[in-house]
Amino acid sequence: MKTAIKTRRADNFAEWYQEVIREADMAEHSGVRGCMIIKPWGFAIWERIQRRLDDLIRATGHHNVCFPLFIPIELFEREAKHVEGFAKEMAVVTHHRLVERDGKLVPDAELESPLIVRPTSETIIGEAMAKWVKSWRDLPLMLNQWCNVVRWEMRPRLFLRTSEFLWQEGHTAHAGRDEAIEETRRMLEVYRQVVEDDMRMPVIRGTKTPGERFPGADDTHTIEAMMQDGRALQAGTSHFLGQNFARAAGIQFQDKGGELKHAFTTSWGASTRLVGALIMTHADDDGLRLPPTIAPTQVLIVPIARDDAARAEVMPAAEALAKRLRALRFRDEPLRVGVDARDDSGANKRWAAIKKGVPVIVELGPRDIAAGAVTYTRRDAIAEKHQGIAMDAFAASLPETLGAIDEALWRQALDYRKAQTVEGIRSYDDLAAHFRSEAGTGFVHGKLAPEGETGDRLQAIGVTVRCLPYEQSGTSGTCLVSGRPATQDAVFAKAY
Amino acid sequence: MKTAIKTRRADNFAEWYQEVIREADMAEHSGVRGCMIIKPWGFAIWERIQRRLDDLIRATGHHNVCFPLFIPIELFEREAKHVEGFAKEMAVVTHHRLVERDGKLVPDAELESPLIVRPTSETIIGEAMAKWVKSWRDLPLMLNQWCNVVRWEMRPRLFLRTSEFLWQEGHTAHAGRDEAIEETRRMLEVYRQVVEDDMRMPVIRGTKTPGERFPGADDTHTIEAMMQDGRALQAGTSHFLGQNFARAAGIQFQDKGGELKHAFTTSWGASTRLVGALIMTHADDDGLRLPPTIAPTQVLIVPIARDDAARAEVMPAAEALAKRLRALRFRDEPLRVGVDARDDSGANKRWAAIKKGVPVIVELGPRDIAAGAVTYTRRDAIAEKHQGIAMDAFAASLPETLGAIDEALWRQALDYRKAQTVEGIRSYDDLAAHFRSEAGTGFVHGKLAPEGETGDRLQAIGVTVRCLPYEQSGTSGTCLVSGRPATQDAVFAKAY
Repeated sequence: MKTAIKTRRADNFAEWYQEVIREADMAEHSGVRGCMIIKPWGFAIWERIQRRLDDLIRATGHHNVCFPLFIPIELFEREAKHVEGFAKEMAVVTHHRLVERDGKLVPDAELESPLIVRPTSETIIGEAMAKWVKSWRDLPLMLNQWCNVVRWEMRPRLFLRTSEFLWQEGHTAHAGRDEAIEETRRMLEVYRQVVEDDMRMPVIRGTKTPGERFPGADDTHTIEAMMQDGRALQAGTSHFLGQNFARAAGIQFQDKGGELKHAFTTSWGASTRLVGALIMTHADDDGLRLPPTIAPTQVLIVPIARDDAARAEVMPAAEALAKRLRALRFRDEPLRVGVDARDDSGANKRWAAIKKGVPVIVELGPRDIAAGAVTYTRRDAIAEKHQGIAMDAFAASLPETLGAIDEALWRQALDYRKAQTVEGIRSYDDLAAHFRSEAGTGFVHGKLAPEGETGDRLQAIGVTVRCLPYEQSGTSGTCLVSGRPATQDAVFAKAY
Repeated sequence: MKTAIKTRRADNFAEWYQEVIREADMAEHSGVRGCMIIKPWGFAIWERIQRRLDDLIRATGHHNVCFPLFIPIELFEREAKHVEGFAKEMAVVTHHRLVERDGKLVPDAELESPLIVRPTSETIIGEAMAKWVKSWRDLPLMLNQWCNVVRWEMRPRLFLRTSEFLWQEGHTAHAGRDEAIEETRRMLEVYRQVVEDDMRMPVIRGTKTPGERFPGADDTHTIEAMMQDGRALQAGTSHFLGQNFARAAGIQFQDKGGELKHAFTTSWGASTRLVGALIMTHADDDGLRLPPTIAPTQVLIVPIARDDAARAEVMPAAEALAKRLRALRFRDEPLRVGVDARDDSGANKRWAAIKKGVPVIVELGPRDIAAGAVTYTRRDAIAEKHQGIAMDAFAASLPETLGAIDEALWRQALDYRKAQTVEGIRSYDDLAAHFRSEAGTGFVHGKLAPEGETGDRLQAIGVTVRCLPYEQSGTSGTCLVSGRPATQDAVFAKAY
């Protein structure tokens, strides 16, 4: 069977991924190494994710702010561990002027001290918090910003690894350790909610091993999703920073007893990478598939008209139908309904909508109008065209149809993860054999002894510990890395 | 009479402006030269402006996108006129790595060719449009992005002149000249709508003289507002770029007849500067005043409780009142109602709300609750406390009260502009005498001959032509610069 995406997932996942993005017209590489252009459809998807996240971030008591793009190099020097993790690849501003010389533009006016384009903002926000926080009354301080950050990428991939990316970064300061840990977990739950309930991507919640933590953090909590090539993708992280950043920046407060103490801080972020994860979770060999809550357009009406006369009849009917459907609601929001009024064939327009992942595609021609009916396609099952469906019945069941599509995407992603999860591995050799085999992907659930360095042996087989799941079985077994007795459950996988 | 802002507008406008921002806790300078930190209240105001603008930008058929932060230096070399206007002060990225040397971090890995942090994105968006546009079917192409831009500032002022600022920049390409000019004017009207109808700042719409145009534009349309020191502030501009950028970037299309033509492009922007303009239009000697549509909190309830027992009674009553008021609507949106639950005195909390510009401040104590009444203050008239107002009557008239505040702010701004507008000046000497005098500010409406250089003589008195208003009287007179006969009306002013 011919598919809309030339390369199939099973044949070349990376190539398929690029083609899905191109065919859905979501994004492309720019002339600037590692920086992408997010086009209208890709950006609208990001805006949907953003809106859902932003609502929950506000509802949990955070305030949006805006800190500078540039960070003085000195601020990075303060926090040694943090720098180790990031210092490698950052964009450095050294001049603040251009002048023309021999017909070419060249940098001029060198800065006394270089500025770093933020790779993340713990340092500069920490500096401000140190100024703002004086007493326990000033805590908790709960901030969030939506912004661009830059981490130079040598091997860029659209949405997944780009030198510039968009994200939100939350930063909070608290009087007590427990309260900060609670915040760290609360925000991971916010991520889980958006990723699972809205984006319909099943995730495993857990903490990172010391070697996989955010540079400078005491603990990193993560949600790990599985892509359709069996690899893991970290879909959101929330860091308990202990007093490390507070000490480096001097975030101190007088407690109720008058004693001066360092605050406990957290940070947490989710980025445009989520758009890449959404594609790799739900897209198929015919292009993107979008869960209705995230779809910028949930229902697209494709007017079918062979000539101007037909067009004059069909266009107003399409608009009238759109208006009618917009009065319906799905999950407390009015339906997002579009009409594809472009001058192209019905078949081309239907396929364009399929490749963009629109959940429900309605075809409306003169014959449908005469019969008071529509023809529609569910994106999760395009083989079947629902023809001659009475318009009233179609409209009445539309929210339910969207719910069914939502559920189908969730179910398929869950089934895929289940099929790609391996439980029985008991030794490093078996682990290595699994990941070295042809079909060796997916999540391996196994034991990990808490001490010792796991990095080298796992690195040799291209595997990382994705997380130590919140849900621990409590059983005993053998550590898959060291072979020692171990009770701690861990998830091992190749990862993005 | 003592005022909440120490410095009065009339005494030192610049100092007053800084204090209003500080007392309302809106923003502050960061350690990075010229870059500000926008704090929660300042950012929430920007988000309100942003939401209103974004809604209208979408409603006029534009799509949000995201282009890279960095622009290759070569792209600037292509568009000579554009570079002249901007080349001076831009942040230049020259390295993409940091390394530690002698315990200090230093830039490493020099880029082959420097990258510019975007001061505006005509060049990079033009390059993409050249790739995307092939035929008349691809036009119009109507894009918008919300982003940060950087123009190095030597004398920064919060919101008004910062090296990094936030804005939206719209970029469109059209097949025909008239259509592009129509778009240019349509977007100016969008700006007028948000600035006048929502922010309640009266503006004059017009076009810029050639010397004041955007670098590379054929025509620049502007809305000019008057600040409370009589100076003009450009509150939004919309540029008709003709075929200049299309030629530089190669944006060509095949028209219906198969002929290859250059597109006509436009660009238009409005920035965080608007927050500064809002302050300088509406704030008074007691702090900020916000029009209800823009106020993040329209009604703040201040619980009055001297002890824990009173607090236990008042807090639930305050929350219940807030809930009740949130069910009301103002201009198609539910009311935004807050409760100030902080542990501080009622008087302090009331003054904090006054300085933040909250339109309606409600005090609620045990006696009010017993009487089923409230005490409230309108921010536009804080001298009068409305005491013992029955809660039902207060709630019922609240949308009307907000409407009255909205109208009062508009009326006062309009009256101020009227009082500061001078009509009778007929010669350059009188113009110079006016602007050199103690009270020499405001808008001078006068004639300007269309030809010749006006820059030098006006520069000598610190004045610019703000615009050639859309509404022309058609009368004859004498050019205020050259003394020649002239029919064209112009607005002269000192400006931000």
